[in-house]
Amino acid sequence: MNDILVVGSVALDSVRTPFGEAAEALGGSASYFSFSASHFAPVRIVAVVGEDFPAAHRESLLERGIDLSGLQRAAGRTFRWRGEYSAELGHAHTLETQLNVFSTFHPALDETHRHCPFVFLANIDPDLQLEVLDQMKRPRLTLSDTMNYWIARKPERVMEVMRKVDVALLNEEEARALSGETQLVRAAARLIEQGSKAVVVKKGEHGSLYRSKDELFIIPAFPVAGLQDPTGAGDSFAGGFLGWIARCGSLDMPVQRQAMAFGTAMASLAIEAFSPARLVSALDEEIAQRVATLHRMVDFELEKSFP
Amino acid sequence: MNDILVVGSVALDSVRTPFGEAAEALGGSASYFSFSASHFAPVRIVAVVGEDFPAAHRESLLERGIDLSGLQRAAGRTFRWRGEYSAELGHAHTLETQLNVFSTFHPALDETHRHCPFVFLANIDPDLQLEVLDQMKRPRLTLSDTMNYWIARKPERVMEVMRKVDVALLNEEEARALSGETQLVRAAARLIEQGSKAVVVKKGEHGSLYRSKDELFIIPAFPVAGLQDPTGAGDSFAGGFLGWIARCGSLDMPVQRQAMAFGTAMASLAIEAFSPARLVSALDEEIAQRVATLHRMVDFELEKSFP
Repeated sequence: MNDILVVGSVALDSVRTPFGEAAEALGGSASYFSFSASHFAPVRIVAVVGEDFPAAHRESLLERGIDLSGLQRAAGRTFRWRGEYSAELGHAHTLETQLNVFSTFHPALDETHRHCPFVFLANIDPDLQLEVLDQMKRPRLTLSDTMNYWIARKPERVMEVMRKVDVALLNEEEARALSGETQLVRAAARLIEQGSKAVVVKKGEHGSLYRSKDELFIIPAFPVAGLQDPTGAGDSFAGGFLGWIARCGSLDMPVQRQAMAFGTAMASLAIEAFSPARLVSALDEEIAQRVATLHRMVDFELEKSFP
Repeated sequence: MNDILVVGSVALDSVRTPFGEAAEALGGSASYFSFSASHFAPVRIVAVVGEDFPAAHRESLLERGIDLSGLQRAAGRTFRWRGEYSAELGHAHTLETQLNVFSTFHPALDETHRHCPFVFLANIDPDLQLEVLDQMKRPRLTLSDTMNYWIARKPERVMEVMRKVDVALLNEEEARALSGETQLVRAAARLIEQGSKAVVVKKGEHGSLYRSKDELFIIPAFPVAGLQDPTGAGDSFAGGFLGWIARCGSLDMPVQRQAMAFGTAMASLAIEAFSPARLVSALDEEIAQRVATLHRMVDFELEKSFP
């Protein structure tokens, strides 16, 4: 049994980038994560949607074999996010966030959810992340994400989550804000000193780095030809990372290093289209091809003849 | 014969960083490059200094076996640079540049210089770089550097140099300015379309990338514990890169990939002290150790079982 539980948002996103726009498209951290991870292992979503959530979006998740028994349907409207990206494409400018049914959400886990060996706590309120962790029955690997919103409001709770999970995912600004260090390898080291077991810092076009007490692993971003919409890159990375670990059923470092490559490949697919469309259409051969390209991009022979 | 010719500046630097300061220390692109490359192959400098150039600096270059027969001594004062780095340490803020004897410098190459198989054209006036190239007798590999100063004043001449050399070195701002692309892998691709054979883009804490028509290679920076002074990092990278190629006597891509790792290691040493002190004191075992650490930082097993 290598099921993955994800607790996060299922949303309707309206996004504009220099390359186009999408209105009320399927979005949210749990959606991107699940489409991505579903290439590697069974995924179960715990989240909430409103009465207006389109049946077609439900269908597209079910078609990928994603378990929706934990997707609550509450009175009211689905969580909505509206944002845009400038030419630099670095960061989203949020135009509007409607929490709607998400504002009163509490994750309800049944026995099957509690026994999932792999868990992704997407960037929801750290208090909810802790609620989920408390309910889990000896998971094998837990992965968390967060966002600036929670770091600004509940920094101690964010740190508490980061100390409790096995791997904590952050982007570069979050790593700098939490550690007080500007240089990212150092920022990651500082977070380990502060009690995290392992952190993954996502650096956008510069790739990502994995740091634990004993390990430092760095991987570049996959160079995409046709970037369309950066939304969901981080959650898609998480899906490839945790998906690969679940598929291998191993937490060994060689597997976690490969998982970084699969995460990188999935993030590169996510940003090539609006909404999670490319995560759905991607063939496994295509994913393997990107991982092989990444391997070729970083590979060099270690020279034994010097000095 | 695997001699390297470097044409660049030999200067007196006065630098202040958050970690200390140095006054009238040995600096200049040719100095940093030579100390770095001297760990791998014989180096010959063509440059100019003034009547005030300290004998001790000459000695320290000679002690590393660096050939100074092409180091002209002209009437007047040595080239001086004064700069400081803020807490971010990204970029130098130039306080003063005194060209002095460098303002009328023209590289004078003798027969030995002209027959050097490996050439580094440091960030001098592109017209001087072209003068040197015209005088060389069938070099095996030519490497160029440049700076924003020349890109702003003589962009066509900079591009002409970049099309004529085998590998052109730039930092990220220079790559963006010359290519008109913000994303660096694309910026490098654009420079190849514009006629360069291969480019190396230095990305500071994010490492560097090598791009040619057929190759894309990316390597992270070596994480230094005690950064003191970023001056000379790029020239030290160039010294490790070209030095390794000269030592191997091969332009094969596996050698160029290793050369990127040796360049990265040398840059990391350079910034651990003011002036080129660490490049002088570094043991070859220490350099090899950093290359091995870099290898471990990026290495992952390619998985054949997926899909």
